[in-house]
Amino acid sequence: MHVDADDVVVTQGTQQALDLVARVLLSPGDVVAVEDPGYRVAADLFASHGARVVPVPVDGEGIVVDRIPAGARLVYTTPSHQFPLGVTLSLGRRRQLLAHAARHGAAVVEDDYDSEFRHEPRPLDTLHCLDPTGHVIYVGTFSKSLLPSLRLGYLLCPPSLRPAVLAARQLTDGYGPPHLQAALARFIDEGLLARHVRRATRVYTERRALVLEELARLPVAVVPSAAGLHVAAHLTDDAVAAAAVVAAAAREGVELEALQPLGPGIREGLVLGFGATVTGSVRPGIRRLGRLLAGAGGSPTTPGPRRRSPASR
Amino acid sequence: MHVDADDVVVTQGTQQALDLVARVLLSPGDVVAVEDPGYRVAADLFASHGARVVPVPVDGEGIVVDRIPAGARLVYTTPSHQFPLGVTLSLGRRRQLLAHAARHGAAVVEDDYDSEFRHEPRPLDTLHCLDPTGHVIYVGTFSKSLLPSLRLGYLLCPPSLRPAVLAARQLTDGYGPPHLQAALARFIDEGLLARHVRRATRVYTERRALVLEELARLPVAVVPSAAGLHVAAHLTDDAVAAAAVVAAAAREGVELEALQPLGPGIREGLVLGFGATVTGSVRPGIRRLGRLLAGAGGSPTTPGPRRRSPASR
Repeated sequence: MHVDADDVVVTQGTQQALDLVARVLLSPGDVVAVEDPGYRVAADLFASHGARVVPVPVDGEGIVVDRIPAGARLVYTTPSHQFPLGVTLSLGRRRQLLAHAARHGAAVVEDDYDSEFRHEPRPLDTLHCLDPTGHVIYVGTFSKSLLPSLRLGYLLCPPSLRPAVLAARQLTDGYGPPHLQAALARFIDEGLLARHVRRATRVYTERRALVLEELARLPVAVVPSAAGLHVAAHLTDDAVAAAAVVAAAAREGVELEALQPLGPGIREGLVLGFGATVTGSVRPGIRRLGRLLAGAGGSPTTPGPRRRSPASR
Repeated sequence: MHVDADDVVVTQGTQQALDLVARVLLSPGDVVAVEDPGYRVAADLFASHGARVVPVPVDGEGIVVDRIPAGARLVYTTPSHQFPLGVTLSLGRRRQLLAHAARHGAAVVEDDYDSEFRHEPRPLDTLHCLDPTGHVIYVGTFSKSLLPSLRLGYLLCPPSLRPAVLAARQLTDGYGPPHLQAALARFIDEGLLARHVRRATRVYTERRALVLEELARLPVAVVPSAAGLHVAAHLTDDAVAAAAVVAAAAREGVELEALQPLGPGIREGLVLGFGATVTGSVRPGIRRLGRLLAGAGGSPTTPGPRRRSPASR
C-alpha cells in the first residue's frame, strides 16, 4: 500500500480506531453490516453508538455481499483473515463489495488485524488498495505483530474524513502516549519489526502446520485460511455442542473458543488460537480435544456429569 | 479522601474520563451546565455527545449555583481552582451545589486538575468528600503533577455507575498501556510522587509569588486563588481587548491566554500560566506585558500597526 504519514491516524489499538470511525460516521439508527460469525466486540461497539447492527453471513469466499442491506451506512469486514472463520475474501467479492459501497454510498471498514503472519504466498490486494473511490477505511494494529499491551493501532482514512477523525480523537482522549509511538517508530525504521515478523512467521507457520496435521484426525472440517494466528473448524457431528466441548476442554487445560454466531443459522464450530502458546503443547492439546470429541459424539442428550451447559460458562 | 482501589477507573487523562462520563450519562439533547468562563474542551466534548451545553457564570465564590438550570443532567465544575479564573468554590456553594444535585438528580463532575499544587493552607473538602448521596464524579489527572504525555488520569465514580463506565472504557479503546500504570503505581507507592509534588510546590509557590508581585504593578485585577499553575487577571481598562494583548505579547515572546467566554456578558481577562516556564523569565515577561498594556490603554480604536485583531490569531 502507498501511504503518506499524513494518511495515518495513530490510535489506541483497533478498538479506538473503530470507535473513532463510529463517532464520525454513525448516527443513531444507522445500519451497520457485520460479518456473521464475526468480531462481537466490534458489533457491540457499533451498537453502543446507537447503530442497528445487521449480521451478514460468511461463506468460503468471505462476507456474502449480496446479503448486505442496501441502506447500510457502514460495512465492517476482516478480508485478509476473516474473524473468526479465517477465510480470505476472494478477489471477486472484494470488487463486488467496493461496487456495493460506491453504489450505495457505504463506508467499508477493513480490519486487517493479523495478516502480517502469512502462511501462504501471494496475498490479495487490500480493499484499501483496490478502492479508487475513497470508501475504505483501513484499520491496522500492533497487538498481534507485537503486543496488545502496547495499545497501538492506526487507521488510514480518506482525506475527506481525516479532519473529523482527528477532531474526534482530540475530544475522546486527547492523544496517546507519544514516547510509545516514538519507540515503535524507531523499531520500525531500524527494520526490527520486519525482522521480528519474519522470524515469528516461521514459528507460527510451523505451529499452524502441526495444528492442521492434528485436526485432520478429528471429526471436524477445517476452514481454509492463508494467514493469522488461529484456525476455525466446524464440527462434523451436528449433534455435538461446540460450547460444551470448549467448556470440557477448559477443564482439561486446553483453551479454545466456540464460534459465536451473531444471528441465527450459523454452524457450530471451534476456534483454535496458536499465537499465545508454545509449539510443544499443540499436539498433546489437540489430542486431548480429540478424545473429548470422540466421547461427546452420539450422546448429545446424555451429557456426562462434568459437562456444563453453554449458559453456565 | 477515602477511596478503595475498586472505586478508581484509570483513564487516558482527564479527557477520556470526561468522555466516558458523557458516554454513560448523556443522551442527545440532555442539558449540561458548564462554568463560564470555563474549560472549552470539556464543553466541546459534551456537545459532541449531542448535549445542549449551558454556560453558567462564575463569581468570586465559584460557579453561581442559582443559575444552573434545574433540568441539567450534568454539571461540570472545577471547584479547587476554577479553570480559568482560579477561584475556589466556597464551602457554602459546595453545599448548595450538592443540594441542587440531590434535588434535581443531576450528576456533578468535579475536575480537580491541578490542586496538588497548593499555595495556601487549609484546602476545602472536595465535593466528592462532602457528597453523601453519590452524585459526584471526581476526575483527577497526572498531567499537571507529572507529565501530560503520560496520558494518565482517573475517575472516582459512584458504585452504581462503575459497571457502565468500565464497559464504556472496554468498548472505547479496550484499556490503556498497563506498563505505564504499573510504573506510576510504583512511583506513588515508593513516595516519589508525594516528594516530587512537595518539591515542585515550593518552586511553583515562589514563581507564583513573583507573578503576583509583578502583576500588582499592572492595570489588572488579579483573581484570588489558592492552588494550581496559573493565575487570571481582569483588565481594569475595559477598552483594552484581551485577545489583542495576547497577540501582541506572543509577538514579543510572552505566552499567555485570553479568558475565552462561552456565553455573553463575561469580562475580558488574561490567563498567565507559570507551570511550563522558568522562574527567571517571569519578571521580564510580565514587565514586557506591562509595557504593552501601558501602550494599549486609552487607544482602543487606533491599534498600532503590529496589533492584530482577535480573529486573525
